[in-house]
Amino acid sequence: MQLFSQIKSFGGYINRYRHPSTTTHCEMTFSLYLPPLAESTSVPVLYWLSGLTCTDENFMQKAGAQRVASELGIAILCPDTSPRGTNLPGEHESEDFGSGAGFYLNATQAPWIQHYRMYDYIVEELPALVKTHCPVLDKWSISGHSMGGHGALIIALKNPHAFVSASAFAPICNPIDSPWADKIFSRYLGADKALWEEYDATVLIENAQEKLPLFVDQGEADEFLTEKLKPAALQAACEKAKYPLTLRTHHGYGHSYYFIASFIEDHLRYHGKALKGESTHVYY
Amino acid sequence: MQLFSQIKSFGGYINRYRHPSTTTHCEMTFSLYLPPLAESTSVPVLYWLSGLTCTDENFMQKAGAQRVASELGIAILCPDTSPRGTNLPGEHESEDFGSGAGFYLNATQAPWIQHYRMYDYIVEELPALVKTHCPVLDKWSISGHSMGGHGALIIALKNPHAFVSASAFAPICNPIDSPWADKIFSRYLGADKALWEEYDATVLIENAQEKLPLFVDQGEADEFLTEKLKPAALQAACEKAKYPLTLRTHHGYGHSYYFIASFIEDHLRYHGKALKGESTHVYY
Repeated sequence: MQLFSQIKSFGGYINRYRHPSTTTHCEMTFSLYLPPLAESTSVPVLYWLSGLTCTDENFMQKAGAQRVASELGIAILCPDTSPRGTNLPGEHESEDFGSGAGFYLNATQAPWIQHYRMYDYIVEELPALVKTHCPVLDKWSISGHSMGGHGALIIALKNPHAFVSASAFAPICNPIDSPWADKIFSRYLGADKALWEEYDATVLIENAQEKLPLFVDQGEADEFLTEKLKPAALQAACEKAKYPLTLRTHHGYGHSYYFIASFIEDHLRYHGKALKGESTHVYY
Repeated sequence: MQLFSQIKSFGGYINRYRHPSTTTHCEMTFSLYLPPLAESTSVPVLYWLSGLTCTDENFMQKAGAQRVASELGIAILCPDTSPRGTNLPGEHESEDFGSGAGFYLNATQAPWIQHYRMYDYIVEELPALVKTHCPVLDKWSISGHSMGGHGALIIALKNPHAFVSASAFAPICNPIDSPWADKIFSRYLGADKALWEEYDATVLIENAQEKLPLFVDQGEADEFLTEKLKPAALQAACEKAKYPLTLRTHHGYGHSYYFIASFIEDHLRYHGKALKGESTHVYY
């Protein structure tokens, strides 16, 4: 694990690391914001999963999260959104498939199966690496945006004991009932739709045993809202399963980082409370 | 003047406009953040001049300024950093000359003289346009970063009655005594060094009659600090001329937007006080 960049931000540091991954079988890059408190003690972590086309840098550059993370003493861990440099056939042809679009799943189909194992990378390898080498506690929250909101929800739902809180901005809530089902899931996962359901937050809600509360923000002017994101499906599943969901919608806001920046402070304070052991069951 | 994009941010809107410029003789683009208060009344303006390679978008995306501008009821006006689309010979070959690098001056040399008139565009044309068409007051402050910090300082020094306050992040303080003198100023302005001095903040300080206080933040780990930015020259000129300067240096901070984002709130509150008519003579 090589630290190749360190930039000061709100009294702390954004560290960027490269490491060979045993999960994705390529070199992976990630960013870790360490608040000033991390100079004297280990700190809790907010795991941030980014959306389509992003790298480990977008959230650090555009969300403005370091200000409140610095104040609260929370680290922010931003992985990349896919393997890189593998140059598989067709990998770079589309914004929503291949590089920059790992969808936080483990591919089962050739040629993706060898490298596109972002689920295991995010759930297993990267947290173990960071806990071993960086001044962080074993107290983690998770959040993300769009494809990364999908990642945060499915990973929290499948690993409810790994996180003290979970949230998302404009997540892809029900991908198997979206244009991405045929375009993305069939290519990564093949024809077995039971496997697709393992990576669909709305389906996972129906079968959840543990009920880690979810906090979701959604812009009402988001151009992907109805056809691709489908928060209404998530909400209906939560109501049916009596699963605790706080879904806020925001008049006039779109899908970009300007939306995230406008509300990231609420998410940081929400996770900050949970990481301190305070209740977050009802957000308002 | 055509509004071609509108994005909600912290309750207000980032509007992007295109207009044909009578100064630069090409189409120009600018961004204007209007805080929620602008829906009911006209608001004061912070004029932000960006650095090399930037467009009207970088500051809006990366500085995190909208949060406090929204709170204080201040508009933020971000022009582009050069004419665009003119495709003069050599215009796009360098990061610090030509497109993205107008240096906020009026060129006197062919072929730049026809389009590269960013000083007049910033001082005359754009403010008149915005005051005519947008809900803003005739109360303006000015700030900027790097090349834009240079722009903010020289424009404030040459037009002290046009602004109630002025600040800069990591400004180019003494360009005529830097590598940019021969590379940039000689190409835009020719061999007449008296003309170069018209665009050098350190020289302008020596001759200033009006003394609008300057507030400058500088990162101590900035890679351009000693050779290219030269805040020490500005400071020495201010001391000699008894010109009011607040120069803060910050341990460990570099030249990027992460530095700006870490301290932009201080600048917004400083300008906010001035725009309300409160004294800013001593910042601390």
